[in-house]
Amino acid sequence: METINFDHISANPLLPEVKAAMIEAIESDYGNPSSHHKKGDQAAKALDVARQSVAALLNCTNPKEIVFTSGGTESINHAIKGVAMANASKGKHIITSNIEHNSVIKSLRRLKGQGYKVTSVSVDSYGRVNPDEIKNAITDETILVSIMHSNNEIGTIQPIAQIAEITRAKKIILHTDAVDSVGIIPMDVQALGADIVSFASNSFYGPTGVGGLYISRGTRIFPILDGGAQEGNKRAGAENMIGIIGMGVAAQIAAEKMDERTAHFKLLKDKLLRELPDYIDEYNFNGHMEESLPNLLSVSIKYIEGESVVLMLDDENVAASTRSACASGSLRSSHVLQSIGVDYADAQGTLLVSFGIDNTEDEIPKFLEALKRTVKTLRDISPLCRTSN
Amino acid sequence: METINFDHISANPLLPEVKAAMIEAIESDYGNPSSHHKKGDQAAKALDVARQSVAALLNCTNPKEIVFTSGGTESINHAIKGVAMANASKGKHIITSNIEHNSVIKSLRRLKGQGYKVTSVSVDSYGRVNPDEIKNAITDETILVSIMHSNNEIGTIQPIAQIAEITRAKKIILHTDAVDSVGIIPMDVQALGADIVSFASNSFYGPTGVGGLYISRGTRIFPILDGGAQEGNKRAGAENMIGIIGMGVAAQIAAEKMDERTAHFKLLKDKLLRELPDYIDEYNFNGHMEESLPNLLSVSIKYIEGESVVLMLDDENVAASTRSACASGSLRSSHVLQSIGVDYADAQGTLLVSFGIDNTEDEIPKFLEALKRTVKTLRDISPLCRTSN
Repeated sequence: METINFDHISANPLLPEVKAAMIEAIESDYGNPSSHHKKGDQAAKALDVARQSVAALLNCTNPKEIVFTSGGTESINHAIKGVAMANASKGKHIITSNIEHNSVIKSLRRLKGQGYKVTSVSVDSYGRVNPDEIKNAITDETILVSIMHSNNEIGTIQPIAQIAEITRAKKIILHTDAVDSVGIIPMDVQALGADIVSFASNSFYGPTGVGGLYISRGTRIFPILDGGAQEGNKRAGAENMIGIIGMGVAAQIAAEKMDERTAHFKLLKDKLLRELPDYIDEYNFNGHMEESLPNLLSVSIKYIEGESVVLMLDDENVAASTRSACASGSLRSSHVLQSIGVDYADAQGTLLVSFGIDNTEDEIPKFLEALKRTVKTLRDISPLCRTSN
Repeated sequence: METINFDHISANPLLPEVKAAMIEAIESDYGNPSSHHKKGDQAAKALDVARQSVAALLNCTNPKEIVFTSGGTESINHAIKGVAMANASKGKHIITSNIEHNSVIKSLRRLKGQGYKVTSVSVDSYGRVNPDEIKNAITDETILVSIMHSNNEIGTIQPIAQIAEITRAKKIILHTDAVDSVGIIPMDVQALGADIVSFASNSFYGPTGVGGLYISRGTRIFPILDGGAQEGNKRAGAENMIGIIGMGVAAQIAAEKMDERTAHFKLLKDKLLRELPDYIDEYNFNGHMEESLPNLLSVSIKYIEGESVVLMLDDENVAASTRSACASGSLRSSHVLQSIGVDYADAQGTLLVSFGIDNTEDEIPKFLEALKRTVKTLRDISPLCRTSN
């Protein structure tokens, strides 16, 4: 039976061109780009090509502002801890929001243990940060504002450019976790105004375990991996050549196909939004309806438990998730859903649908049929369910 | 023209079996091992298989003690900074040696900026640490001893088991950077007694940008990458599936072929040691003659400059290095050679030959011919050269 993959937020498949480039990289056996001989030079050139493609995807004119890392988590840890350490003499206050990714939350928690103070601003019921709240939270000790570009559980996009105006005026570094935006929606680091942008290759159909940072020239930040002189002294360690080459090709294609992909995602999302009422009742969509990722939809379905939906859908060969896989080791209710005011029971019944370029319109009714059966079965056995059912 | 690669310390080629496994992983497009559906389960199983192979290579009976990282540099940063942060309340003193890898030196330098104190013990003219010096350096504040297992520039192997006896008795954590040992010489973490062992996949013919840590159960250490619950909460971040699968296969083969490889390396090294005098004169070998890596030979050739030798050998399609590629961005004299008492001029004329399983006996005389021509040319134009030449 065919599988429907509506869980792209956990893992995206590799593009055929990315697979081909990675296989070629494996077969050509690159040397160490830091070596002073021919094999090393070939490797260094391949790194340059990948760096230029990634820079272009972000509309970054200076590829030296791109630093390769082992993925979104490393990028975020690097941004937050690196800025905190490098600017500790100026102050130890950091501002963030209530709906950040675990990598941000836990990096900040680690810093709290080292004497840093963190202010976490709230979001409205659509998951949007109010830039004025950030402005009001700034003190003389503030060295960093870290606000995600888009949310991985509800898709809401934050007003980063507006926040950047505030931080620039105050000469405070702005980091944005754009792991779920870069490669999905247009990203122009020049227009955005953030000093540091974190991203991950798998979001745009490159391999997992590879990512990067845009670090605007002149931004005061320490590495978190110290050692060799790789990545312009910003990130030590022998490069994951095969992964970086894959990310480069994925970035190039993401830039070329951005409009086409966005249109495709919107088509799927609109169809799902439109047709869902024909299949199930008593649900709420989470997140902002316009300022939102086109490939992601969060829906809280009443009287059922999201994990059970995921497991039952899996039996029907439909992959979906309740929230990001990174948090799936955790049994607690989603802090994102709590922050936008979803009550505990509804949060438990939340399903996260995330589309990919490989999804088709035909899959929407098939998914909805499977979801309808699943919801009916679960509601029939649910003690929470309406007696009228 | 055929290329002779005697620079395996910079980069090892991938084994055919590793290439095949990585290509298969690329083609099968693993999901996210943290996802709760079939694709996620397959990925989680593939991670388990790799972890078991790596554990077996280290004679580690509990695969949960293996943590995957993005390479040797991350492993070392994690070990040193993670132990330092987790044990700061007990003390802030760390002991190391004068000939560690840059990742160790620079991680410790970073910690010094945060109030940690570091004692660096000297080595003898063969590059060996005296365990008594470590014993004498221990104070009530000492929380970590970090001594490399083998040196990446001269090959000397340290008496880690003896040092472990000292640290165990004092309940101090012992980390050993075994990046150039694991997969090359037998490694038995149970006999060794170190609490943390850093390693990198490329040393044993796996991909670059992948590595790991052995962290003995109960060792107090923080992650340096905070976020999701991956790697038993010890290292957050979506896994580099393709790289880890490659490392797993490389580890399995390294364990199976350990004896064969060691014998092959010894054959090559002995031949080079024996025949070198027939080709050039006025040189000194660096490092210990017995307690040394079998695949590595450092020789300081008088009256010439090592970088020039490497560049001229490259023109003859021979790859060699002056020292580790990680340090090749630096123009300073090697701290390792300085520490064993090699004078400045001799250090500049140092050539590092590192063998791989793909090298053959036939390559030794070819390499020596090329070296002879190179040394003659360079000495003819060298202002340092003996007038008798």
